[in-house]
Amino acid sequence: MSHEYDTVAPPNAKRMKTDNQLEDKKILYVVLEGCSLETAKVGGEYAILSSDKHANFLRKQKKDPADYRPDILHQCLLNLLDSPLNRAGKLRVFFRTSKNVLVDVSPQCRIPRTFDRFCGLMVQLLHKLSIRAAETTQKLMSVVKNPVSNHLPVGSRKMLMSFNVPELTMANKLVAPETDEPLVLIIGGIARGKIVVDYNDSETKISNYPLSAALTCAKVTSGLEEIWGII
Amino acid sequence: MSHEYDTVAPPNAKRMKTDNQLEDKKILYVVLEGCSLETAKVGGEYAILSSDKHANFLRKQKKDPADYRPDILHQCLLNLLDSPLNRAGKLRVFFRTSKNVLVDVSPQCRIPRTFDRFCGLMVQLLHKLSIRAAETTQKLMSVVKNPVSNHLPVGSRKMLMSFNVPELTMANKLVAPETDEPLVLIIGGIARGKIVVDYNDSETKISNYPLSAALTCAKVTSGLEEIWGII
Repeated sequence: MSHEYDTVAPPNAKRMKTDNQLEDKKILYVVLEGCSLETAKVGGEYAILSSDKHANFLRKQKKDPADYRPDILHQCLLNLLDSPLNRAGKLRVFFRTSKNVLVDVSPQCRIPRTFDRFCGLMVQLLHKLSIRAAETTQKLMSVVKNPVSNHLPVGSRKMLMSFNVPELTMANKLVAPETDEPLVLIIGGIARGKIVVDYNDSETKISNYPLSAALTCAKVTSGLEEIWGII
Repeated sequence: MSHEYDTVAPPNAKRMKTDNQLEDKKILYVVLEGCSLETAKVGGEYAILSSDKHANFLRKQKKDPADYRPDILHQCLLNLLDSPLNRAGKLRVFFRTSKNVLVDVSPQCRIPRTFDRFCGLMVQLLHKLSIRAAETTQKLMSVVKNPVSNHLPVGSRKMLMSFNVPELTMANKLVAPETDEPLVLIIGGIARGKIVVDYNDSETKISNYPLSAALTCAKVTSGLEEIWGII
């Protein structure tokens, strides 16, 4: 067996995961940043800390309950994974917690519809570092290594969604119809404040009105569906 | 004081509420139908029955837990009332429960972000028949009399959102830009199945993909924002 080495990289070199995924470039990558997702043992059981249920527990630890909003991540994931864009295979979702845990969400992942069950699943994820489908053992969610840019297409445009910027881009104008490039949108999975990251190349907003993270997710997927003709 | 009677209707006749609201006709009315919102005393406390928390209680009463999904109404109201369309004063929301209780939701109503607090508020609503703002005693939610058509503009177009119809209308084509008429969209606040009402004049879908009720709410508001230039 003749060993012809590829002139660029030796065959068994550990390729960046993004290279061989790039068959179809029209893919929207959404990265939810700063998400509140922390477990703690409360009353003998592990739970996802939330402002609603654990206010006293959090205050005792000198933490501000208002920072503990896992409901935001839940609602974002519902709007994203329910979208026609995802059903058409044109969406990839990652989220990073405020504790810097990065999670890759499979397009096939069915997010539990109710918050309590979502929290139960997230406790499992943070303890076992992955969640598998019951029947097929396919990974539905898995903790992956930082930085997130390793998991994004090389050279892709990376836009941070931020309300405090002058530039407004309508959701259905985020990419030009004819371009055949993936797009990365970075959305804060937070209730208030601003997200700062080091891997975006521009900042924009899609409305002059302040939008919740979940509504931003619904609007950007709708916009890309319109541009890419996913009806 | 001369008593000149208006040739059409005596001055103190009980006008249809819709007449004098019609200053600005570009308003989207959304009616969420079939919503699961039922209270019961469980463990000594009144609660909103939900498939997650009350499965055993419901089975004992020969009821199917899968029909008890108040999380759907919660997510729809979040997406609707968070929308720029609502902030621009161009959205009116009603919802009707599967027990035929009709509720008028004020555009100023801030929906509790978390499900538990939302359920607490809904128990109050169903018992006191209205919810008032703490500071101003303005009604934020109130139980109103059926039929819902009494609360909708006379002669307005009423479209039922349904997945099982051939006709597809893109969300940003639901009304023609130049028309100055209100639109009524009827959306099922249900997990599965089809809504049947007697006051719609047409049925349509906005995607060839099945959409959750909450995502439908986000898409129709986004569509009307685009048509009416609310950016």
